[in-house]
Amino acid sequence: MAVIDLNADLGEGIGDDEAMLTLVTSANIACGFHAGTPTLLAETCRAAAVRGVRIGAQVSYPDRSGFGRRFIDIAYDDLVADVIYQIGALRALAHAAGSTVSYVKPHGALYNTVVHHERQSAAVIEAVRGVDADLAVMGLPGSQILRDARAAGLPTISEAFADRGYRPDGTLVPRGEPGALITDSADVANAVVRMVTSNTVTAIDGSTISVAAQSICLHGDTPGAVEHAQAVRHALAAAGVTIAATG
Amino acid sequence: MAVIDLNADLGEGIGDDEAMLTLVTSANIACGFHAGTPTLLAETCRAAAVRGVRIGAQVSYPDRSGFGRRFIDIAYDDLVADVIYQIGALRALAHAAGSTVSYVKPHGALYNTVVHHERQSAAVIEAVRGVDADLAVMGLPGSQILRDARAAGLPTISEAFADRGYRPDGTLVPRGEPGALITDSADVANAVVRMVTSNTVTAIDGSTISVAAQSICLHGDTPGAVEHAQAVRHALAAAGVTIAATG
Amino acid sequence: MAVIDLNADLGEGIGDDEAMLTLVTSANIACGFHAGTPTLLAETCRAAAVRGVRIGAQVSYPDRSGFGRRFIDIAYDDLVADVIYQIGALRALAHAAGSTVSYVKPHGALYNTVVHHERQSAAVIEAVRGVDADLAVMGLPGSQILRDARAAGLPTISEAFADRGYRPDGTLVPRGEPGALITDSADVANAVVRMVTSNTVTAIDGSTISVAAQSICLHGDTPGAVEHAQAVRHALAAAGVTIAATG
Amino acid sequence: MAVIDLNADLGEGIGDDEAMLTLVTSANIACGFHAGTPTLLAETCRAAAVRGVRIGAQVSYPDRSGFGRRFIDIAYDDLVADVIYQIGALRALAHAAGSTVSYVKPHGALYNTVVHHERQSAAVIEAVRGVDADLAVMGLPGSQILRDARAAGLPTISEAFADRGYRPDGTLVPRGEPGALITDSADVANAVVRMVTSNTVTAIDGSTISVAAQSICLHGDTPGAVEHAQAVRHALAAAGVTIAATG
Repeated sequence: MAVIDLNADLGEGIGDDEAMLTLVTSANIACGFHAGTPTLLAETCRAAAVRGVRIGAQVSYPDRSGFGRRFIDIAYDDLVADVIYQIGALRALAHAAGSTVSYVKPHGALYNTVVHHERQSAAVIEAVRGVDADLAVMGLPGSQILRDARAAGLPTISEAFADRGYRPDGTLVPRGEPGALITDSADVANAVVRMVTSNTVTAIDGSTISVAAQSICLHGDTPGAVEHAQAVRHALAAAGVTIAATG
Repeated sequence: MAVIDLNADLGEGIGDDEAMLTLVTSANIACGFHAGTPTLLAETCRAAAVRGVRIGAQVSYPDRSGFGRRFIDIAYDDLVADVIYQIGALRALAHAAGSTVSYVKPHGALYNTVVHHERQSAAVIEAVRGVDADLAVMGLPGSQILRDARAAGLPTISEAFADRGYRPDGTLVPRGEPGALITDSADVANAVVRMVTSNTVTAIDGSTISVAAQSICLHGDTPGAVEHAQAVRHALAAAGVTIAATG
Repeated sequence: MAVIDLNADLGEGIGDDEAMLTLVTSANIACGFHAGTPTLLAETCRAAAVRGVRIGAQVSYPDRSGFGRRFIDIAYDDLVADVIYQIGALRALAHAAGSTVSYVKPHGALYNTVVHHERQSAAVIEAVRGVDADLAVMGLPGSQILRDARAAGLPTISEAFADRGYRPDGTLVPRGEPGALITDSADVANAVVRMVTSNTVTAIDGSTISVAAQSICLHGDTPGAVEHAQAVRHALAAAGVTIAATG
Repeated sequence: MAVIDLNADLGEGIGDDEAMLTLVTSANIACGFHAGTPTLLAETCRAAAVRGVRIGAQVSYPDRSGFGRRFIDIAYDDLVADVIYQIGALRALAHAAGSTVSYVKPHGALYNTVVHHERQSAAVIEAVRGVDADLAVMGLPGSQILRDARAAGLPTISEAFADRGYRPDGTLVPRGEPGALITDSADVANAVVRMVTSNTVTAIDGSTISVAAQSICLHGDTPGAVEHAQAVRHALAAAGVTIAATG
């Protein structure tokens, strides 16, 4: 009996947050370092709380003008402090909204960096533990940060991407390259059902690879995001999969 | 047997925070909206924690270029969210440093505004309660915000200013006017002893007025701040006053 | 033979700038203090330059989290420096794009404030003159800032609003009140034709008032903005009005 | 008959700018991306203008919390726009102060990056040319950016560092390593005289290396900065060297 969590990036001031919140079970809410004002973050926390959607803190490099999409060679102590600051800010907003922050997900360039960067991964983990050792960490299966999280005794949530192409080695096809994005809702839905029911995905070379994920990331800001999400939900229901925030 | 708390504004990147932390019992630490980076705030929390100095969140309008010293006609919901965000961020940093945020003190123009502005005062109080109803609020005796805090069931800490001139009505002489600042350390120390032992201060017109305060604010960034603080401590000790974080 | 300029707020990261640039003759481009990154501002300058659309600097209070919509009680020297900084930044971007900044238009709360606030109006004018005495100032007819601009020898551009309701005294119906926004494209177009051909508008009480404007502001971020702009252009063409950047 | 320019980083809100402006002939003024408010930058431009000190724009990555000291893997177009924006903002402030921006000097991590990073160096050069092809570029002798500047027909100013240790290959001893900083004013002054009169410096291994510089950088924010600068001026005067903004 399969169960899967659906997550999306919200509170960024782009995309249709209201619609996405009716479709996902976990909301990765921005913390103001790459996008979002306190007012918008508060509203997003309240909207998630009302719908019973689990809240995660989407922490970023301090880079509003770059939307957090640029690697910064940041010192260890700076990254620890930045991540603690962001988690704390969102926790207070979530608490005031009657909910809580359940997990932490790095955003953008930080997400990609902590897949392999030992020092920055360690800094994020130190920050999460410094705030609350019950917080889960969401990231890419096989990433440095999930290994570090487990070693530190933190819960982890591995995720796969609904609308991104995979390479044979299990990494994502970089944005801008052919096959990076799946744009047809039916294709997206079919891929997700396979990920969930057989833990596999067809890579861009046609090979079948293994992808074990507890959550599926639905991008909230791409064209067709809401349609993709609806198609995914219908396909999962038809396949007998329960959609719930777990992991 | 008199007891008094001594507080100062810290974490602003100006003044000698290390020295002030050996002299005060409460640290009003900036939250990044008028000054301070997460790294500096984290360091200041750790330094306060090591010395057993009580930590307060010094919340501000979002105004880094103006150092929080300019009134902003901010909407109620925006101010609530801004204050929750700041308290939460500092709470997490304080927690990671092994301490906690015990009280909230508005900074600069926000401090002056909530002395009388009902709407902004109410917003700050809603924010504090939204985070933690055990948080105290520090402010001017007789201010709107201390009334609102009491009505909301929040603990309060009233404060007096060691180096500021008072007008006959109990308000401060505005900066820039004659008598606004007391610059001689002995004068500062004598004024504080009178505030604490007799609850009075000599106003600029020579009259004696009543000032009941649980904490004395020592500015950390004015010339002579450390000398003033040392003189105050010596004079209070000589007068048999215990210096401790209370209220 | 009537001639009118059409302007819109662009470079704010909201609305359909590409479409609006095919419909207006003047672009009020944000300068980064209320919205816009340097990259977006550069792109918007290039897009305006390619289409021969006149560029204006839309200067704001330093208030990104509030989108420049909140009054700030800013010191004279601070406002002068903020406005010079913004104009200079946009001038360089416009120059690199092969164009130039032709005028300055205050944004949001600053726009409303300099209608009547003598000190802030004077600061904006000092800033404009400090950069280039050939820059025009765009504002509300009858406003303090247009009087100050004329007294300082600066060119002025008076503007009317296509989709806003007017009160009998010639001021706008405040947002949020009934009649503040005209939402039907045909109504918008008809109102603009009357403004341009007879210099009158029907106020919300049904009375006819005089509105003399050299430019019409078409909001670029409201629902239906592009449709409104298209309807306005068609109606003006049918009325024999030439659309061009003048004043 | 030797002539040398003395430069320092100013407008950063740290150090004694007033004193340094009486000692240097070129002021590298911050542009707000790593430090400085428009008001402070305006004041610094006016103070430089009054003393006839040449003004340079010290452009930075957008990184206020890191003081511009962290490498950012920024896209080409973003860096071009960021640098144009900063130069333009400072040019307007300098113009309003009765002066002008004569050169551009990258700050912090950007300075170090464009010593070798072809793409970012090219972006800075495109930005400078986009604003004004008469602007000079200040940088390290032998750096990528000075080569690119010359290839683009821009004037260049090569600089040496008064208080930094050199490695045998002509690069600086990184901060934090032994020998990175010269702290004795007499040693600093002697090193500068040798740089200017014989174009050599003694590297940390005792070897003599060649350093050809048109300007000497005096740090304005290090302890003893003013004393170092005074010692340098006296020693240069004694050696018959003229101090003037050239190159």
